[in-house]
Amino acid sequence: MTPLATETAPIPLEGLAAGQAMHNLAARLFPICRSITGPGVRETLRILQEFIPIQVHEVSTGTQVFDWTVPREWVIRDAFIADSTGRRIVDFKRNNLHVFGYSTPVDREMNLAELDEHLLSLPDQPDAIPYVTSYYKERWGFCLTHRQRLELKEDTYRVFIDSELKDGSLTYGECVFPGESKKEVFLSTYICHPSMANNELSGPVVTTFVAKWIQTEPRRYTYRVVFIPETIGSLTYLSRHLEHLQKHVIAGFNISCVGDERAFSCVSSRYSNTLADKIARHVLGFMSPNYVTHSFLDRGSDERQYCSPRVDLPLVGLCRSKYGTYPEYHTSLDNLGLVTPNGLAGGYEMVRRCLEALEGNAYYRVNCIGEPCLGKRGLYPTLSTKHSADNVKVMMDFIAYADGTNALISIADTIGVSVWDLFPIVERLRDAGLISEVGQ
Amino acid sequence: MTPLATETAPIPLEGLAAGQAMHNLAARLFPICRSITGPGVRETLRILQEFIPIQVHEVSTGTQVFDWTVPREWVIRDAFIADSTGRRIVDFKRNNLHVFGYSTPVDREMNLAELDEHLLSLPDQPDAIPYVTSYYKERWGFCLTHRQRLELKEDTYRVFIDSELKDGSLTYGECVFPGESKKEVFLSTYICHPSMANNELSGPVVTTFVAKWIQTEPRRYTYRVVFIPETIGSLTYLSRHLEHLQKHVIAGFNISCVGDERAFSCVSSRYSNTLADKIARHVLGFMSPNYVTHSFLDRGSDERQYCSPRVDLPLVGLCRSKYGTYPEYHTSLDNLGLVTPNGLAGGYEMVRRCLEALEGNAYYRVNCIGEPCLGKRGLYPTLSTKHSADNVKVMMDFIAYADGTNALISIADTIGVSVWDLFPIVERLRDAGLISEVGQ
Amino acid sequence: MTPLATETAPIPLEGLAAGQAMHNLAARLFPICRSITGPGVRETLRILQEFIPIQVHEVSTGTQVFDWTVPREWVIRDAFIADSTGRRIVDFKRNNLHVFGYSTPVDREMNLAELDEHLLSLPDQPDAIPYVTSYYKERWGFCLTHRQRLELKEDTYRVFIDSELKDGSLTYGECVFPGESKKEVFLSTYICHPSMANNELSGPVVTTFVAKWIQTEPRRYTYRVVFIPETIGSLTYLSRHLEHLQKHVIAGFNISCVGDERAFSCVSSRYSNTLADKIARHVLGFMSPNYVTHSFLDRGSDERQYCSPRVDLPLVGLCRSKYGTYPEYHTSLDNLGLVTPNGLAGGYEMVRRCLEALEGNAYYRVNCIGEPCLGKRGLYPTLSTKHSADNVKVMMDFIAYADGTNALISIADTIGVSVWDLFPIVERLRDAGLISEVGQ
Repeated sequence: MTPLATETAPIPLEGLAAGQAMHNLAARLFPICRSITGPGVRETLRILQEFIPIQVHEVSTGTQVFDWTVPREWVIRDAFIADSTGRRIVDFKRNNLHVFGYSTPVDREMNLAELDEHLLSLPDQPDAIPYVTSYYKERWGFCLTHRQRLELKEDTYRVFIDSELKDGSLTYGECVFPGESKKEVFLSTYICHPSMANNELSGPVVTTFVAKWIQTEPRRYTYRVVFIPETIGSLTYLSRHLEHLQKHVIAGFNISCVGDERAFSCVSSRYSNTLADKIARHVLGFMSPNYVTHSFLDRGSDERQYCSPRVDLPLVGLCRSKYGTYPEYHTSLDNLGLVTPNGLAGGYEMVRRCLEALEGNAYYRVNCIGEPCLGKRGLYPTLSTKHSADNVKVMMDFIAYADGTNALISIADTIGVSVWDLFPIVERLRDAGLISEVGQ
Repeated sequence: MTPLATETAPIPLEGLAAGQAMHNLAARLFPICRSITGPGVRETLRILQEFIPIQVHEVSTGTQVFDWTVPREWVIRDAFIADSTGRRIVDFKRNNLHVFGYSTPVDREMNLAELDEHLLSLPDQPDAIPYVTSYYKERWGFCLTHRQRLELKEDTYRVFIDSELKDGSLTYGECVFPGESKKEVFLSTYICHPSMANNELSGPVVTTFVAKWIQTEPRRYTYRVVFIPETIGSLTYLSRHLEHLQKHVIAGFNISCVGDERAFSCVSSRYSNTLADKIARHVLGFMSPNYVTHSFLDRGSDERQYCSPRVDLPLVGLCRSKYGTYPEYHTSLDNLGLVTPNGLAGGYEMVRRCLEALEGNAYYRVNCIGEPCLGKRGLYPTLSTKHSADNVKVMMDFIAYADGTNALISIADTIGVSVWDLFPIVERLRDAGLISEVGQ
Repeated sequence: MTPLATETAPIPLEGLAAGQAMHNLAARLFPICRSITGPGVRETLRILQEFIPIQVHEVSTGTQVFDWTVPREWVIRDAFIADSTGRRIVDFKRNNLHVFGYSTPVDREMNLAELDEHLLSLPDQPDAIPYVTSYYKERWGFCLTHRQRLELKEDTYRVFIDSELKDGSLTYGECVFPGESKKEVFLSTYICHPSMANNELSGPVVTTFVAKWIQTEPRRYTYRVVFIPETIGSLTYLSRHLEHLQKHVIAGFNISCVGDERAFSCVSSRYSNTLADKIARHVLGFMSPNYVTHSFLDRGSDERQYCSPRVDLPLVGLCRSKYGTYPEYHTSLDNLGLVTPNGLAGGYEMVRRCLEALEGNAYYRVNCIGEPCLGKRGLYPTLSTKHSADNVKVMMDFIAYADGTNALISIADTIGVSVWDLFPIVERLRDAGLISEVGQ
């Protein structure tokens, strides 16, 4: 398909206002130390509940979810490295990336050589604190900038981590907004990363605002929106709802990294052939001529689970700059300067457009044989301008393919216009009795 | 498919002779003022009846044809604009394009400002009289060259149109040439434009000569040839014959703009996948390496009706320079200088080749297992030359794909030769008992 | 598919040792004067029987094989042209290409003009003796270098051919190596050319060594290997085994011209869509980034019979420099300098790799839902290096497409790795109980 857009589509004003509100929300959520379990996830969901009616679920440590087991819950209260003068030179309270996720507790003194075995930094990005976790192997460690690491001198250091790994539960949130049909559109985003903005806060923040919008709109489909920890959370959710999802979901979107101002992109499903793929490519083509379609081979978020062989939901990933493709990824540089109100507004627009395209994606059949006589119905423009002639051409092209076998989005792709060009035409033709919606 | 031709195929001598005869016929038809109804259509058909046995049909004003209604009949006898000295400065008798088609009668005096509201000219083509119609809204108007329009001075002008809009009928012509099979090949061309040569006289003139040739040939298929006013005529014809056509037509061609010496082109069917599409692309590839395949989105003639969703005949448009693509289109410059004997001969050749390709497009199956022994049958050339080796290669390649599942044209496309290279080979192999025709 | 290889894969050491042994065998077979029948074929098969258990079959002259008849047997003992001094200036004993294959006997004196009508040479390759046969028309003739021909002076020449065309039989060899399954892999090569090395000795020599290797390996499939005269031999073999082959063969390879060091290439089947095509393209992509896929339109060896319409075995031709594409083809320059140990080793490697790829080409289905937890099974590398991360990526990509619908080779093509990268992964996943083989 030729890209529909020749320049990136401007974001509507209401979207820009939402952009600022989303950025404010991201700023509130930013300091919370989230991980795949624990109080950070719960606090995050509590704040999102101010916006939308999220139901919170807890799944006990040790629960088997397919090939995996829900891990112990991680609680962290404090952590630092102090030098021999007692000065905290690395302090969890200043930046929660300083501690490996799932670090075990420690309180010891050691020399620089021993400390160094527990440190991680990035020589290529000397001002970035990297993000590191060790969910499935017990260990402890600290991350710091490479610049700071180089300045460490021989000394007796105290390393202190006040953390706990205990039986508890995995927490996730879920909202279901019923529509006319039991067929469902599924949105998933994750809430398991500490203080990083594009990956991850852009995801839950945009998803929350999209859910707010869904609530206010008439709905053909039922919408299911989940906020989960990545991987173990999607596996947990699938283990409880697989049959239902396989039966009802017509399209799904994993929403991740949707807050910067660079690319618009999607991660294709396994065979790139689902309705979600088609919708995403159409919307991205509308949003930006330079959109990127990543292969499933470049997957990395929960599409890994949702699209796996025996799950096989019709789902794609939606991103602006995809995880792993931008330099700030998984470091302290992925912050609220990188993610902007405009960036979030673009991410919100992309998701909302996908849902609009889905809602309008019906099958139509023209009611007359041969071309209809538009003139006698006043569907020909009275004043003939270049733009009105284009409208008539689009209308006639739509009718030419409205044979009951093509979904609206297929017609739009075939005739090279966006579904938003077709929506008002469909309405006028339906009002004039010239087309009827048919089952697939 | 790689184009079969590396240079435009020369037209055979008999075609060139036909070219001159067709040009003469076009010259006879040129002065007649045709419109979608009225005496011009009838006079045109009377002349064509000198060549082929056309049956003329009349359909009354007010008859409902699908979403449309057969309009009143338009008769025009005279029309002019005279200046205050009585001099006819714009005169229908000099060029029938001067009057809007379907102009209502008028006989009034007016000043230049008022007159100007009823004038149309082309600033970009100052020497061309444009072609304008107003079939479905009552009005009157004159067309003139922009050069003449600029010379008009303040004066009292008399405008006079002696026309009539009256209940009558729509007229069309039809010939059916029965063949061995009830399966039909359908040809349609239109006779509703006044004095223009490529669009439209090339169409009925070439179609008439093709029909003359059909009459003289043995025919596998039945041929149905119609001469109709565009749009309302094809709708009318379809409304009377839809079920029959859908049941019997295996391929159809809308013949329009086939008289200039520039492009060879076709207008694809809705999904570009009918037998007619395949035949047209093969023949055009044979005619010219630079042939053009237009998308159905570029349609504009009666393929709009024949290929519409609930009609869906397997039909393509055949053109040399397609309507709307050449600068003289819909002006007085589309004249008998633009349309030439050579141009018409090429158009005739294109249509005739399509019919030949269809007639020979059978399914064959080789009778032996493994390659046949050509030598013992004298099918190997006795004198081995480069060309004879090529012939054996083509013969062996044909046999390799003659497995009963490929139509002749598919084999030709697969092995990269024209069906005309295969026809004599098929004959020799059939005579030798090496292949048999099979049902599809 | 993107070529898998970025440089031609090195041949393993054992292959290189085999290369020298194959070259030695070719040197032993080189002087024998083979034709489509006669003692040369039998002597060749006797030598190959030293390596593998070939069963030799004789089919009587006059036997009808489809559209063909087994010809008389040709025996040649001596042939020369002597000048008037009695000096043998052209001597069959020096090079058996000097005599047309199937030359009738002659013993006459003649002048240069008469002699010249029975001579063939190549002006463009003045140092090459061409290879000429006349199987189906009785005649005699001599081939010589063009340089020598130009030196011939007016003289009285004696031409002498001690040959015989007699009722006898056509000879071919066959080995069948049973495997676990009755499904068969079919290998065919030809033994009907006199002293030429790439076309043909590379074929039987490589095939013999591949058959030797097949014998020593565990086998999923049954292997059928035939050594036949080209065309009449494959037709004869098909006439005796057609139904069996059509029922059991899952993939076949015609092995021809596999001994030089230039290209790796294959000749596609009729529709390029068999398992053999897929395997060959995958293996060639692994062997060399510059491999060549020839269309079936460029066929010339026994794929002509095996892939003909009513035979239609799933077979491709495997070649290094294909017959007809290299300058030494069908001349005395196609000798044991052109065919090298390295060249033969590459040909052997190509065929062996195809068989390995076939043997491993099963369908797998992942046993768990969602991604498996590799960590708890020790399938994650303990030391993380760039290469180990690549391995995990390949493993996860394999699992993502192991949904039971894709053969191993399709997954390899989809995820852009070779089947040899997947074999150890399949083994580890099967051992871990994470995947199961399923029927197609």
